[in-house]
Amino acid sequence: MMDTKERIVAATAELMRRHGYTGTGLKQISAESGAPFGSLYHHFPDGKVELAAVALRWSGAGYQLLVEAVIDGEADLIAGIRACFAGAAEVLIASDYADACPIETVALEVASTNETLRVVTAEIFNQWIESASSRFEAAGLDHDTARELGIAFIGALEGAFVLSRALKSPEPMHAAGRAVVDATEAALVRSHPTGSIGPEGVGHSSGLGR
Amino acid sequence: MMDTKERIVAATAELMRRHGYTGTGLKQISAESGAPFGSLYHHFPDGKVELAAVALRWSGAGYQLLVEAVIDGEADLIAGIRACFAGAAEVLIASDYADACPIETVALEVASTNETLRVVTAEIFNQWIESASSRFEAAGLDHDTARELGIAFIGALEGAFVLSRALKSPEPMHAAGRAVVDATEAALVRSHPTGSIGPEGVGHSSGLGR
Repeated sequence: MMDTKERIVAATAELMRRHGYTGTGLKQISAESGAPFGSLYHHFPDGKVELAAVALRWSGAGYQLLVEAVIDGEADLIAGIRACFAGAAEVLIASDYADACPIETVALEVASTNETLRVVTAEIFNQWIESASSRFEAAGLDHDTARELGIAFIGALEGAFVLSRALKSPEPMHAAGRAVVDATEAALVRSHPTGSIGPEGVGHSSGLGR
Repeated sequence: MMDTKERIVAATAELMRRHGYTGTGLKQISAESGAPFGSLYHHFPDGKVELAAVALRWSGAGYQLLVEAVIDGEADLIAGIRACFAGAAEVLIASDYADACPIETVALEVASTNETLRVVTAEIFNQWIESASSRFEAAGLDHDTARELGIAFIGALEGAFVLSRALKSPEPMHAAGRAVVDATEAALVRSHPTGSIGPEGVGHSSGLGR
């Protein structure tokens, strides 16, 4: 059972995911959460910006845990990457392309218009990048390469959400997943001394799924 | 010299690129374009949705021409991909991370809230995907692989815009570019019969830039 503050945060997060920051009003948050207007200001004295920041961090942490669980539930990194993109495609289809990255719309809206919230979205993306990069490093890549692929992985997921939602098709999510797998396998091959391992030797999953 | 209608469309496109659809009002469009309110309704009797649709198509067509010119100005596809991501990074830095994909923010805002405009953004993304895919096919890839990489290319660019704008850093754009290059080179290697060509043989630009 969520308390009032939690219900306000959850309602704000859900409204912002679907309607963005500008498109979400305090009246809707009050209606969706069942919390009276006075309660919103009691818990969030600085109003909509403060509430949005808390809701973004809450959504961001939850989404990170979800993606980590999907990756870590697979036998290796390549299978984990495939599972992430396949899972995102399934959720998009099941939700009629509404259920996607919880902070992306707001991140774009505030990037050039609200510095407080831009910094909040940057903190969340940086945590996601750290989380992803650590898994690429654990798979045997050097720190810089792991960071580069961790960023490319998060970016590919974000870009595929934009295209899949606009086109109402899972195709961009699948295409993004295969490109990230190819880029990761290429980096794994490069990370081994020339000749010691061929493209066929990278993981048990090479050659699957195409 | 732009006529009144063109000035209205250009002002709408610029405001939506920076503030999104919900964050752009007809009063601002009137002020930015110098066109009186009555003129907005004279040229766009159906109001904001009609104006937004025209502005999105205008921005989308312009952006497509820009990206095509960058790709086609290079000696081969790999160099063209690199130039696109490098150019996008430069423009982001020069504009303090404001100047990015002109339709992305609106695409996310309307995806689940305005079916008329969602269809407009889908048409634009489909044109971009067709344009990109034709260049991957011209580089020697079969139709399906070319389409998959064309979609991954556009998606990687869109995702990198989100991360680079939020982080105020060109790093995501560079990481995305390298991942798309790696995925494309892997596909080019696969497209040749085994043994006839090695990874070192794909284009003159392999091995550059890392």
